[in-house]
Amino acid sequence: MLGEQLKKIVECTPGAAGAILMGFDGIAVMQHLAPGAEGVVDLESTAMEFSFRFMELRRAAASLDMGEVQDVTVRGERQSFVCRALSEDYFVGVLLTDPSFLGKGRFLLRSSAAELLADL
Amino acid sequence: MLGEQLKKIVECTPGAAGAILMGFDGIAVMQHLAPGAEGVVDLESTAMEFSFRFMELRRAAASLDMGEVQDVTVRGERQSFVCRALSEDYFVGVLLTDPSFLGKGRFLLRSSAAELLADL
Repeated sequence: MLGEQLKKIVECTPGAAGAILMGFDGIAVMQHLAPGAEGVVDLESTAMEFSFRFMELRRAAASLDMGEVQDVTVRGERQSFVCRALSEDYFVGVLLTDPSFLGKGRFLLRSSAAELLADL
Repeated sequence: MLGEQLKKIVECTPGAAGAILMGFDGIAVMQHLAPGAEGVVDLESTAMEFSFRFMELRRAAASLDMGEVQDVTVRGERQSFVCRALSEDYFVGVLLTDPSFLGKGRFLLRSSAAELLADL
């Protein structure tokens, strides 16, 4: 079920190289790569590298008046990463090699969040 | 000139409470608040809180294969913040109390970047 959800996020987001469900401790639960992305992107390392930093952003936002962080987007020259917190402990992220449909990816993370959380 | 640019970003982004130009050392160069935002949002503290974290995200992205970070967006329940690096040392950010036009804010940061940098 988790795998199907991640696959759907990747397939429905043009430019997505992969989607991953990970703990904020940097331990991956499951991932799905787009065809051809194997060996081209390092989804797990990217998500792991950001997991701790996203947690810090969440803490910073909570200490300000921003409220709970819903999603964080980092747009890079070659790759972009969108992540959405599912709970205190887990997040789901999508890595894109083309940022044109970044908004679509963000929407899919949001609309899949409840189901992903239920399947965890 | 800088002030005019920041004012334009705020006025042209529905839901924007303010825009700020800041060093990654957390020292504000200039800011512009929307009418009524004074005392309601703390733009400088928000930008300062994120400046160091954005720099870490840039380092992380560079160590991966993402390339230079172009912008970072943190969407919170009550407030969202978009920031764009202008150079190694400076970034421009916009704080929104309504995220509906977050993409517009991000676009304006991008399209104003060259001019802001020239005026620095």
